[in-house]
Amino acid sequence: MKLATLRDGSRDGRLVLVSRDLRQAVVPPGGPTTVQALLDDWERHSGYLETIARELEAGRIAAAFPFDPNALLAPLPRAYQWLDASGYLNHVALVRRARGADMPEDLYRDPIMYQGVSDGFLAPLESIPVVSEEGWGTDFEAEVVAVLGDCPMDADRQTAMSAIRLIGLVNDVSLRGLIPDELRKGFGFVHGKPRSALSPVLVTPDELGEAWDGTKVSLPLVVHLNGTLFGSPNAGVDLDFDFAALIMHASKTRPLAAGTLLGSGTVSNVDPATGCCCLVERRVREIIEFGAATTPYLRFGDRVEIEMRDTSGGSIFGKIDQVVVPHRASQAHP
Amino acid sequence: MKLATLRDGSRDGRLVLVSRDLRQAVVPPGGPTTVQALLDDWERHSGYLETIARELEAGRIAAAFPFDPNALLAPLPRAYQWLDASGYLNHVALVRRARGADMPEDLYRDPIMYQGVSDGFLAPLESIPVVSEEGWGTDFEAEVVAVLGDCPMDADRQTAMSAIRLIGLVNDVSLRGLIPDELRKGFGFVHGKPRSALSPVLVTPDELGEAWDGTKVSLPLVVHLNGTLFGSPNAGVDLDFDFAALIMHASKTRPLAAGTLLGSGTVSNVDPATGCCCLVERRVREIIEFGAATTPYLRFGDRVEIEMRDTSGGSIFGKIDQVVVPHRASQAHP
Repeated sequence: MKLATLRDGSRDGRLVLVSRDLRQAVVPPGGPTTVQALLDDWERHSGYLETIARELEAGRIAAAFPFDPNALLAPLPRAYQWLDASGYLNHVALVRRARGADMPEDLYRDPIMYQGVSDGFLAPLESIPVVSEEGWGTDFEAEVVAVLGDCPMDADRQTAMSAIRLIGLVNDVSLRGLIPDELRKGFGFVHGKPRSALSPVLVTPDELGEAWDGTKVSLPLVVHLNGTLFGSPNAGVDLDFDFAALIMHASKTRPLAAGTLLGSGTVSNVDPATGCCCLVERRVREIIEFGAATTPYLRFGDRVEIEMRDTSGGSIFGKIDQVVVPHRASQAHP
Repeated sequence: MKLATLRDGSRDGRLVLVSRDLRQAVVPPGGPTTVQALLDDWERHSGYLETIARELEAGRIAAAFPFDPNALLAPLPRAYQWLDASGYLNHVALVRRARGADMPEDLYRDPIMYQGVSDGFLAPLESIPVVSEEGWGTDFEAEVVAVLGDCPMDADRQTAMSAIRLIGLVNDVSLRGLIPDELRKGFGFVHGKPRSALSPVLVTPDELGEAWDGTKVSLPLVVHLNGTLFGSPNAGVDLDFDFAALIMHASKTRPLAAGTLLGSGTVSNVDPATGCCCLVERRVREIIEFGAATTPYLRFGDRVEIEMRDTSGGSIFGKIDQVVVPHRASQAHP
């Protein structure tokens, strides 16, 4: 099934089920009213929602209405946890190579992961508010995200895999101009990684068919910048840490609560012909090839679109479609 | 008013009001049922709860019952954000001096802050589950915590101060053995800072009387280790970044949502006679004075108590009182 959250004036919005082709939606009568409530009590609620989703798919729900991405909040408008990793070491290796640094051997065993901002996620079509166009170096990062049920501390691989409930996409907005000072302090990001945007819908893994093997999605993640294709690397290729490995890492010293979002990291393939899922990777490829970066960071008015299509061309998660705007002109966020 | 959360089988528990002397509690009839719901809609709910709290204080509530810290969850059992800072640079300077490192000048202008784990907080009397007694180097950190209402992005000092809703205490559990590897990666803590514990009650700032000046608490924070006084530094002394400064820092690139918890950092005074609020600070003082640390990190069975008393000797927040236990023997956490 596919799930979204309608804007209804509340902080958490209203859970709706969405048809596979993203054309129709329905407010399920009864059952959980929010995606978090569903995740809190998955065993109790998911069967019922699956039944409604099948009825919707069969065109048997009179109360169905056209699905409008403009009417959405993020499917989880706020969450108790957002952990983001660097599952694709090709991305890390390129960034390090551009500044003349080696890849430490332990990065191949010990994933990079940080605790991110989860008190609010931008809606899929919401603008990205930025105070300084010059100094902040605004970038996007297109990633796959897994949404978890409860996972115990120190989980083994099987337990980790069975904690995955939903899959979606995320734009991990990154402020490259503010990151070096924070990295030097060693305590992670407070300024450099502001609120991220989520895809219009989250889907249960069965919606991915053969593209899902229980721990990764093997489909291209397609990014357009100002209407031009910027990258379409395959999320199942050159992946060093799959979701099971990342969940095991995250749970080493503490349990993970239902509603935890876990990011794959910027999708990145070794083959340069696949393009990039963030500006900084294009820039470091330019530095390595030509000695200098020519692709600028995002300016006010720049537009980023992130989407993943199935093998028949259908959009799986809907499209993240955002424009960068000056902060004071942006809409207020609760 | 003073607020706590009763364990009731749900993830978020039930909000109760607690008398000033922490002897009586009442489930408010009507109004918000959780602390998060109160924070989500403070203007609407707080006046009503203040009225009930005054009735409780006057002994006019028949439904009042004895307040039992054993029946509590953390006052926010899970939260959308936990940001922890190092407001007391004396602590940072000591740790750096012990390893022969200078204090970079910019640390006096740019606070250290990290995004912490908020998907679950340990109850005030809950044990601390640890997998490895030897390698993990388990430590406590006694801090003051501010709980915020909504705060806009890029807040000025007045806006920051007005976002403070509640004050409490936190034990920021720290695994010193796992922190160096994470600091080297630069992305903050996923393993080194597991779930923290909160004090039995959170209080509105007016409960602190003259000890609260709008941005810091000027009272000793008292820590006992295995029944012996370990430290009682004053949280209003040698503070380099007050809560207003920390909120301004945190909001630079994004708004902060209602229910955000913000930690002061380990309370630390320059005067060594005040003792310490964490083991590592005692250890680095030993290294500086004697050339080697003799105080060990926590072992299974070790007990930490954290409390703050008003000038009349009354406990303000109740006591955090925790024992370290082997993980597999610890109670399950949702």
